[in-house]
Amino acid sequence: MGEGSGAVRVGLIGTKFMGRAHSNAWLKVGRFFDLPRAVEMHAVCGRDKIETPAFAQKWGWRHALTDWRAMIADGEIDLIDVGTPNDVHAEQSIAALEAGKHVACEKPLAGTLADARAMRDAARKSRKCRTFVWFNYRRCPAVALAQRIVASGRLGRIYHVRAAYLQEWGGPDTPLVWRFKGDVAGSGAHGDLNAHIIDMARFITGDEITEVVGAIEETFITHRMIPEGAGAAIKGSADRGAAKPQAGKGRKGRSTVDDAVLFLARFKGGAVASFEATRLATGNKNRNTIEINGERGAIRFDFERMNELMYYDATGEAATRGWTTIMCTDAANHPYAAAWWPDAHVLGYEHGFVNMAADIIRMIAGGQPEVPMPDFEDAFRTQCVLEAAIVSARQRRPVEVREFK
Amino acid sequence: MGEGSGAVRVGLIGTKFMGRAHSNAWLKVGRFFDLPRAVEMHAVCGRDKIETPAFAQKWGWRHALTDWRAMIADGEIDLIDVGTPNDVHAEQSIAALEAGKHVACEKPLAGTLADARAMRDAARKSRKCRTFVWFNYRRCPAVALAQRIVASGRLGRIYHVRAAYLQEWGGPDTPLVWRFKGDVAGSGAHGDLNAHIIDMARFITGDEITEVVGAIEETFITHRMIPEGAGAAIKGSADRGAAKPQAGKGRKGRSTVDDAVLFLARFKGGAVASFEATRLATGNKNRNTIEINGERGAIRFDFERMNELMYYDATGEAATRGWTTIMCTDAANHPYAAAWWPDAHVLGYEHGFVNMAADIIRMIAGGQPEVPMPDFEDAFRTQCVLEAAIVSARQRRPVEVREFK
Amino acid sequence: MGEGSGAVRVGLIGTKFMGRAHSNAWLKVGRFFDLPRAVEMHAVCGRDKIETPAFAQKWGWRHALTDWRAMIADGEIDLIDVGTPNDVHAEQSIAALEAGKHVACEKPLAGTLADARAMRDAARKSRKCRTFVWFNYRRCPAVALAQRIVASGRLGRIYHVRAAYLQEWGGPDTPLVWRFKGDVAGSGAHGDLNAHIIDMARFITGDEITEVVGAIEETFITHRMIPEGAGAAIKGSADRGAAKPQAGKGRKGRSTVDDAVLFLARFKGGAVASFEATRLATGNKNRNTIEINGERGAIRFDFERMNELMYYDATGEAATRGWTTIMCTDAANHPYAAAWWPDAHVLGYEHGFVNMAADIIRMIAGGQPEVPMPDFEDAFRTQCVLEAAIVSARQRRPVEVREFK
Amino acid sequence: MGEGSGAVRVGLIGTKFMGRAHSNAWLKVGRFFDLPRAVEMHAVCGRDKIETPAFAQKWGWRHALTDWRAMIADGEIDLIDVGTPNDVHAEQSIAALEAGKHVACEKPLAGTLADARAMRDAARKSRKCRTFVWFNYRRCPAVALAQRIVASGRLGRIYHVRAAYLQEWGGPDTPLVWRFKGDVAGSGAHGDLNAHIIDMARFITGDEITEVVGAIEETFITHRMIPEGAGAAIKGSADRGAAKPQAGKGRKGRSTVDDAVLFLARFKGGAVASFEATRLATGNKNRNTIEINGERGAIRFDFERMNELMYYDATGEAATRGWTTIMCTDAANHPYAAAWWPDAHVLGYEHGFVNMAADIIRMIAGGQPEVPMPDFEDAFRTQCVLEAAIVSARQRRPVEVREFK
Repeated sequence: MGEGSGAVRVGLIGTKFMGRAHSNAWLKVGRFFDLPRAVEMHAVCGRDKIETPAFAQKWGWRHALTDWRAMIADGEIDLIDVGTPNDVHAEQSIAALEAGKHVACEKPLAGTLADARAMRDAARKSRKCRTFVWFNYRRCPAVALAQRIVASGRLGRIYHVRAAYLQEWGGPDTPLVWRFKGDVAGSGAHGDLNAHIIDMARFITGDEITEVVGAIEETFITHRMIPEGAGAAIKGSADRGAAKPQAGKGRKGRSTVDDAVLFLARFKGGAVASFEATRLATGNKNRNTIEINGERGAIRFDFERMNELMYYDATGEAATRGWTTIMCTDAANHPYAAAWWPDAHVLGYEHGFVNMAADIIRMIAGGQPEVPMPDFEDAFRTQCVLEAAIVSARQRRPVEVREFK
Repeated sequence: MGEGSGAVRVGLIGTKFMGRAHSNAWLKVGRFFDLPRAVEMHAVCGRDKIETPAFAQKWGWRHALTDWRAMIADGEIDLIDVGTPNDVHAEQSIAALEAGKHVACEKPLAGTLADARAMRDAARKSRKCRTFVWFNYRRCPAVALAQRIVASGRLGRIYHVRAAYLQEWGGPDTPLVWRFKGDVAGSGAHGDLNAHIIDMARFITGDEITEVVGAIEETFITHRMIPEGAGAAIKGSADRGAAKPQAGKGRKGRSTVDDAVLFLARFKGGAVASFEATRLATGNKNRNTIEINGERGAIRFDFERMNELMYYDATGEAATRGWTTIMCTDAANHPYAAAWWPDAHVLGYEHGFVNMAADIIRMIAGGQPEVPMPDFEDAFRTQCVLEAAIVSARQRRPVEVREFK
Repeated sequence: MGEGSGAVRVGLIGTKFMGRAHSNAWLKVGRFFDLPRAVEMHAVCGRDKIETPAFAQKWGWRHALTDWRAMIADGEIDLIDVGTPNDVHAEQSIAALEAGKHVACEKPLAGTLADARAMRDAARKSRKCRTFVWFNYRRCPAVALAQRIVASGRLGRIYHVRAAYLQEWGGPDTPLVWRFKGDVAGSGAHGDLNAHIIDMARFITGDEITEVVGAIEETFITHRMIPEGAGAAIKGSADRGAAKPQAGKGRKGRSTVDDAVLFLARFKGGAVASFEATRLATGNKNRNTIEINGERGAIRFDFERMNELMYYDATGEAATRGWTTIMCTDAANHPYAAAWWPDAHVLGYEHGFVNMAADIIRMIAGGQPEVPMPDFEDAFRTQCVLEAAIVSARQRRPVEVREFK
Repeated sequence: MGEGSGAVRVGLIGTKFMGRAHSNAWLKVGRFFDLPRAVEMHAVCGRDKIETPAFAQKWGWRHALTDWRAMIADGEIDLIDVGTPNDVHAEQSIAALEAGKHVACEKPLAGTLADARAMRDAARKSRKCRTFVWFNYRRCPAVALAQRIVASGRLGRIYHVRAAYLQEWGGPDTPLVWRFKGDVAGSGAHGDLNAHIIDMARFITGDEITEVVGAIEETFITHRMIPEGAGAAIKGSADRGAAKPQAGKGRKGRSTVDDAVLFLARFKGGAVASFEATRLATGNKNRNTIEINGERGAIRFDFERMNELMYYDATGEAATRGWTTIMCTDAANHPYAAAWWPDAHVLGYEHGFVNMAADIIRMIAGGQPEVPMPDFEDAFRTQCVLEAAIVSARQRRPVEVREFK
């Protein structure tokens, strides 16, 4: 392992929504980026003995496995890509690290703080292995540009961060798929969506959240229809990414995750912040937004218009000052844009994953990512904020993030 | 008094930003609305012996006074319009009620909860006098339409309210005008801006906030330059509406108000909510926004595009479902629109005041307002939420709103 | 007459949509602007013997007349404001000029080119009288700012002008009001709407249209229901500004105006241009838009968001370049903004008229307007472009504008 | 050939911008769509003996050729994909048809009308071969949805079409690459961009353009710097998709194509229309827009926000009527969406090509495309409109499209 010169051989665990997103990333990355090492789609691992080989063939994975431990034991593999539900991230990632593999794990780092801490500790111990967490939104060109702008000091002192990740798919008609089961998913909107915006806020500001001042955790829909073929669904094979499972005839089960978590926080550098994640924000499909106001400028981002960054430069000429909508597709000037198409031939959701795959390969080859990459250490900090928010909501008190370190 | 048939004779106290806004409303209301009673701009009262008569002449007020008690004693006046800083609302309004006048008071109801409670009590006692509070944004046609949509039940169960009033004028270069003095203004962004969005949220949802779960109060700029002619400024005659006073040569004073207050809350009907008011949201001029997500639909409003209401109908045909931008200028179908211009000959900030003036006159004449009007009783509930948020921020605990009733 | 120092005494002809808009402007102008001379709303003239005095009383006009010749003969009046249908502009304006009055005439200058030419000639002859044409959109702060930006040279060489004025009210259910009668209105969308965007394009670019290369004139709805009380409607007293007259029971009459006129043109400076005016652009309430692309920058404006100007500076830093949405409400930096409210307390349609009234008074007092003001000479050039477009459409050939000089 | 059941073997000619876009489409299509036949990336053909094999290896093409005639002679290939400059479309496509291959040709159909006619005639003759033209924008989900809405009759009678394709990359600093050479490119913005919007307008309305009423053809920048390595550039190997070639030291050559073409047109069904294509619309990166106004509704599309379709339903309830922004990512309800990601996990430019590749395979297998597909017959009609516009511009007269049939 290390900074070898042959192809980086990847083994992916997971064949659902994230399995597809990662497979697509590994398929495309070498076609669009000039990389220091090639990528070999070595093996994919899924639970289903029929579906997994079909998945492997479709996407071009050389080998199909149903035992992830066998994959980790495969000496040919350099990088284990963990694209499974949150409850198995720790077991798989730690085993991979112990086997001397680099690990790229889906976000959030884990379903529980204990798992996340164990993962961080394993990463600390394994000095020669690199860890990566798929916070894909960092690698939307617009978000990466926001990070560069803030890092350059252009916003000056940061006053406010306003982050919200609003979805609407969790209405009362949505059945009890695995994402509503606390034992599998760890949490609901919180781990799924707040994880993203906490990471984005930390990434763009370069600052750390020190305290959750207050929080609300809410489950509006406490009982949901059990889907037909419920066993599978509850065990995790159904996914909102797929066609919605039909609700069964009358049997309902209890949702054991939050539908929404809101919290207020303070950053070390003095900024105040609000965060909201919800699956019941009717009208909002995938509105992952962040606004940051500083002394000398501000930025706004909305993933539903992911190619655009809004930037306000408070230092310019007063008569023409305003919010500038930057189309972040300029090869010469915007992160990742040179790999893709001519100006304003816009990108989509999947491109964040491909951009991240490129940075993973660059880093494994000893190079630098285009913008900072979260490892397990970094993602553990996000996990601590998630935990502080839940404790704050449940204990009805302000909670310092360092309690969990 | 009561539902007389002659002109309603108005006496206005205040000649600054709100003095102008109200004068303009009284000047225009009879020209655009068909009212059951005429309006007479009877008298205006200001502190300055030279400026006040000039103001009266400019706007067409018959009489100019410098003693507000004399105005209240004037038997000719039917309605006292209180357009002064928050610290004198109570004294003036209560005196007017005791003199048997209707009272229309600027928002927030008062600078302190005690003042607000006294005002509510005075209003309760004075059965024949009507009270009104200038929460002007209720009477933007788009906000009024939002209220009608929600009241009709179209959004179904309300899940979330997201309200923010973002301004940027309070940066470090802004001098220590009266709005930064706690003894005059009562609070900073909180009373000035959160008052508006709490009222809007209560108005549109028709629901009451029961608890503040957590809150942050922050003063980012603790010391500000004392303006030249500082005495006047500190006493309240300077105004952000006017040209900014020049900062003096080096003397600074302490700002004793918040620059920003954020809080999380719960509504009686089960909705969760976030509120943020700030004067330091760089890039945002006057972004008074609210978003409400319900089971069957959602609305969004941003005052910077005040003629537009965004509405999402989740019950319609799936293929063409989305956010509809309603230009709220249709005479036959939108609140207040018939009084003004043809379709999409858009309105501005001042029109909310004129619309409110029309409703005040209608109500004094025994009729109904176009949409519900806040009286002192109603505005006191908003004040209780303001108080709960501040107590929550300072005592670092959840606070029930009924503590203050 | 001339630059006297007393109040400017205004006599207004017209009491319909424009009568109201102008009355409101004269009512407000002295309250918001510091003017070199006061304004006296001296007399208003309408055809209806009952409605006119009521109108005068409502708006504060001292005298009500039904004979416009009597008004022009009134030696007290300094300025005749012509707010009547297009077919009487010439007669009234020329008479007023001959009586030594300043004249402010509604746009378009006239219903026919012959009328317009006679008006221009009368203005040339009457050296001491000033003429003004109510192209109100020039005085939206955003449009005025656009003019300043272009005049400063910031766009460099102009390549393209794209102007469209899109309305939707002229569908098949709209009855045969005066605006559909060629003998009264002169034309349909063309004179009503293209007049505005031709003027805006000339104003902002500071350049002249030299040729209409091709044009389409279209009447989609050739027959319309004759409204009840049809006589009045056909004679011009009904107005789309008022509630729509009910269509009668089955009787239809012929529409003798265009519903839409599109044309392509060339500017003297080399720019190419497209123009479209229509009353059948379903979905568009009052979308008066212009886009101008130059070598070093570009601007975009849409009246439905009239407080915003979009500006693209192609000379700035590449990484943060984009369209900047300028909220044109900054007292210190934007045209006309100082007269009104604090930042982003947005303006509406009517404010363009008030801003124009201020400039009229300043110019009568010998001063300068905030941005260039169209007189009859200038408006005649717009009329020549209107004519060239119609000739081009009807004769199916390119038409040079100078044919009509 | 025909509706065989094995893999469809594709041979691609072209390795530049379109070569990449098509390769990506063939690479992805089988991974995301359930297709009736597999796709085999059989061979790619380019001129460069070193680059072509590298390109083949990168994208997974089995064979690399430098002689396109050899590729056409290859009996293994089912479909020839022509991704070359416009001047060779005819020769390559006709040869492929004569060899019994299906042909998918880049747009515009050809660089000259004569070429296009020959291609159409060859397609007519070759009954068993299918032809396809890569008008990729038809297969943006939002554009496809627009087509469905209009085809369903929801807009009623169509009054107006307003189409513009605005780019900005053709400023005076852009060197003389092949796109500015008339003998290679056929035309400038006209064939490149107007081709797209003519096709989109025909596609969405389902109507045909019968007459060009007037047109402007303009070359603003007549002389451009000859790039270093100019031979290649002039012969066509340089591309705006790649990094811009550096301008040489002072030598300039003549641009022999238009920078912008505007024209006005009439549709058979009575609609009027405007079209504009330009490479000098500063500020506009890739603003491919269309607006269609009908009696009962309207649509708007802007490719820079390609996931959104704006729809106005004029038949709905008046109070809540407005422009609805439809996020066209709903698997169950929007064209092509089921193949991709969950709701509002937005798509990019490249996905239009993948969607088209899916439809090509479906059609070769005897099935139906998701929305109508242009063949050479259909694309020839677009070419006739292009020709009519140029003739109109040069002869300064209205031109009927049927002149060219």
